[in-house]
Amino acid sequence: MAVETALIAPSFTDKLDASRVASRVLAQATTAQKNRALEAIGDAVIAGAERILAANELDLANARENGLSAGMQDRLRLDVGRLEGLRAAVRQIATLTDPVGQTIRGSVLPNGLNVTQVRVPFGVVGAIYEARPNVTIDIAALALKSGNAVVLRGGSAAENTNRVLVELLQAAIAGEGVPAEAIQTIDEFGREGARQLMQARGQVDVLIPRGSADLINTVVTESRVPVIETGAGVVHIYLDESADTQTAIEIVSNAKVQRPSVCNALETLLVHSAAAERLLPPVLGRLREQGVVIHADDRTSALVSDTVPATEEDWSTEHMSLDLSVRVVDDLDAALEHIQRYSTHHTESILTNDLARAERFLAEVDSAVVMVNASTRFTDGGEFGFGAEVGISTQKLHARGPMGLPELTSTKWIVRGSGQVRG
Amino acid sequence: MAVETALIAPSFTDKLDASRVASRVLAQATTAQKNRALEAIGDAVIAGAERILAANELDLANARENGLSAGMQDRLRLDVGRLEGLRAAVRQIATLTDPVGQTIRGSVLPNGLNVTQVRVPFGVVGAIYEARPNVTIDIAALALKSGNAVVLRGGSAAENTNRVLVELLQAAIAGEGVPAEAIQTIDEFGREGARQLMQARGQVDVLIPRGSADLINTVVTESRVPVIETGAGVVHIYLDESADTQTAIEIVSNAKVQRPSVCNALETLLVHSAAAERLLPPVLGRLREQGVVIHADDRTSALVSDTVPATEEDWSTEHMSLDLSVRVVDDLDAALEHIQRYSTHHTESILTNDLARAERFLAEVDSAVVMVNASTRFTDGGEFGFGAEVGISTQKLHARGPMGLPELTSTKWIVRGSGQVRG
Repeated sequence: MAVETALIAPSFTDKLDASRVASRVLAQATTAQKNRALEAIGDAVIAGAERILAANELDLANARENGLSAGMQDRLRLDVGRLEGLRAAVRQIATLTDPVGQTIRGSVLPNGLNVTQVRVPFGVVGAIYEARPNVTIDIAALALKSGNAVVLRGGSAAENTNRVLVELLQAAIAGEGVPAEAIQTIDEFGREGARQLMQARGQVDVLIPRGSADLINTVVTESRVPVIETGAGVVHIYLDESADTQTAIEIVSNAKVQRPSVCNALETLLVHSAAAERLLPPVLGRLREQGVVIHADDRTSALVSDTVPATEEDWSTEHMSLDLSVRVVDDLDAALEHIQRYSTHHTESILTNDLARAERFLAEVDSAVVMVNASTRFTDGGEFGFGAEVGISTQKLHARGPMGLPELTSTKWIVRGSGQVRG
Repeated sequence: MAVETALIAPSFTDKLDASRVASRVLAQATTAQKNRALEAIGDAVIAGAERILAANELDLANARENGLSAGMQDRLRLDVGRLEGLRAAVRQIATLTDPVGQTIRGSVLPNGLNVTQVRVPFGVVGAIYEARPNVTIDIAALALKSGNAVVLRGGSAAENTNRVLVELLQAAIAGEGVPAEAIQTIDEFGREGARQLMQARGQVDVLIPRGSADLINTVVTESRVPVIETGAGVVHIYLDESADTQTAIEIVSNAKVQRPSVCNALETLLVHSAAAERLLPPVLGRLREQGVVIHADDRTSALVSDTVPATEEDWSTEHMSLDLSVRVVDDLDAALEHIQRYSTHHTESILTNDLARAERFLAEVDSAVVMVNASTRFTDGGEFGFGAEVGISTQKLHARGPMGLPELTSTKWIVRGSGQVRG
């Protein structure tokens, strides 16, 4: 008896092939068509709320059974309010400028050839992330707007939720003439699928890991597909000798306390020894009122009370909590040395009124974002005016710092001639 | 007895650490200082000619003994004329615009923060290449001009030449105040050194392989350091129904014959069936006069004599010789399908007088460079006006197509505030 091929689930290779075919159609879609597909995604998330939340309840029940932490359960949980937030986010992406087709540079060569470099989609973008179903919608919408097909590998803890979400998203975009296969999940292939995705150089054009440092490290280490790394932030503020006291109090407090769990939050405060006595008591006083635990070196603990001793490990720790490492340094050189040694090259800020020192800090600190007299919390695609949060790259290739939609594109050179040959 | 540490050769790790330290100094060097160091390199290559050529003679003797091919021996060989050519190339690089410090974009945010994105050096660039000692000078000069320290791993067949070259280069730049360790070789660590270089993520910021497809493939597969891939070119020209006969003769001949051994040379010619009878005899007639062997499909061999049958393998072969694969296709769709299947996404050109077909070809062919009515030989940094030949990227991340000095840089965001905190 002949095998009914239509009943056989598509293989991993079939799925990637279908992504490539879909990517070619999507690359030619107009901005209007992509925006209609985004609107349809937003509507589908609300219209399908009942199915989504039922699947999510299944995942949550498994999570409780498997003893997932309260924090992980919270990240996994969807409710009507969160779904409405997701619709708003997708609609926001629809309002952004379409990067595809933008001309970056161009000229007419002496021989009359007209040469332009234009933005084109990557093609197929892979995403590996953890049990946060909102990332499914988020990445799918960003990829769609930038003309890319996306292959999703979410955490197994969100498997049921993601399956329903992808089904709804596929139906929504197909209704607007975008191939359903422009959004696919490979969750059904489990860990082996993630492994194969990382080996799929040529089939997948770029891979974006989102989640814990462990996850990102695994992808960076194992992937043969080019990766955009969105890494950890051991973020520093250096209070120079001339830093204004009130500015220091406000900026340090904002950088540490406003949202301690994110990558642009402050982790280590360095203070010039000549200003430590003036600055540390009021700056750390405010932080202690806000519940921050100070991990202090000896020179700091000599000036302020109620601290815990800083360990060597503290200097390279991304606390992501109301903890702050504090060190007194001899001068700007010592601050630069400390940053060079312990920073993850995400964001560093100097507070100073000395122009020469400000310029030296900006020039010599080798981080994605370097600031003078500003809170590190401003390292953010939204704050920079990009309108969407693709992530913050801590690598140097292709994209560095906050990424907007243009960072989800590649380029192509267009050459228009009239019969030119090379001499 | 105490070990005399000064006499111990530096370890692999020591060398990479020294590269990082040197890269920090070089990143702050002025353009004038870097240009003086480049002039010194050019002069050192001439002043040291006797030592260089003696070392090169040693490598050539080994090459003969080991039975290296005549072509490889030729690429390995230096003489006074070639050294003068290298000096001229280094002086040319000194005349190019320094990309470091260029502002790419910037704005003042509503809260008054002044945000700019500027070009900065990568830091430490690794290069893995084969037995072509000219690449040692070439890459070292390009890295220096773009503010990067470079770690070189050349082919073992050029080991003696490269050792002398690096010694001369180090002395030359040190004389201009650039740390000698900004240019280092790891050839003494052999294959194990190459392996370690590919694992040195974090110590090396980007790795550039130059040489055969095998070498590039090994680096792409094994490297944990981000790679810029300069891949092979299975380059296509499609003669559309409306292509002008004389233009087709001239462009196809130029693309195939002018320099067949390079990556932008033509490998496969596709012809619309309705124009095959008109175009193929004169186009292939000219090529045969020029000694080109035609690997023809059946429809082509029915129209022209003296061909060899094209095999399936021919369609994906980068001949790099006076061989051309030729196929008659039914229409533009068939041409696009063929290109999609067999192209290495380097360069493709359509010859046509039909505007709609030209635009469709430009939009749908997913290659680094896509042309209308021009020879594929124009895909070249020099022709594009970049002034230097860093290579031609066939990947989509970071750089695509001909690369100039800016492609050897990363970026950094500079944020200048006056006490702003995030609300």
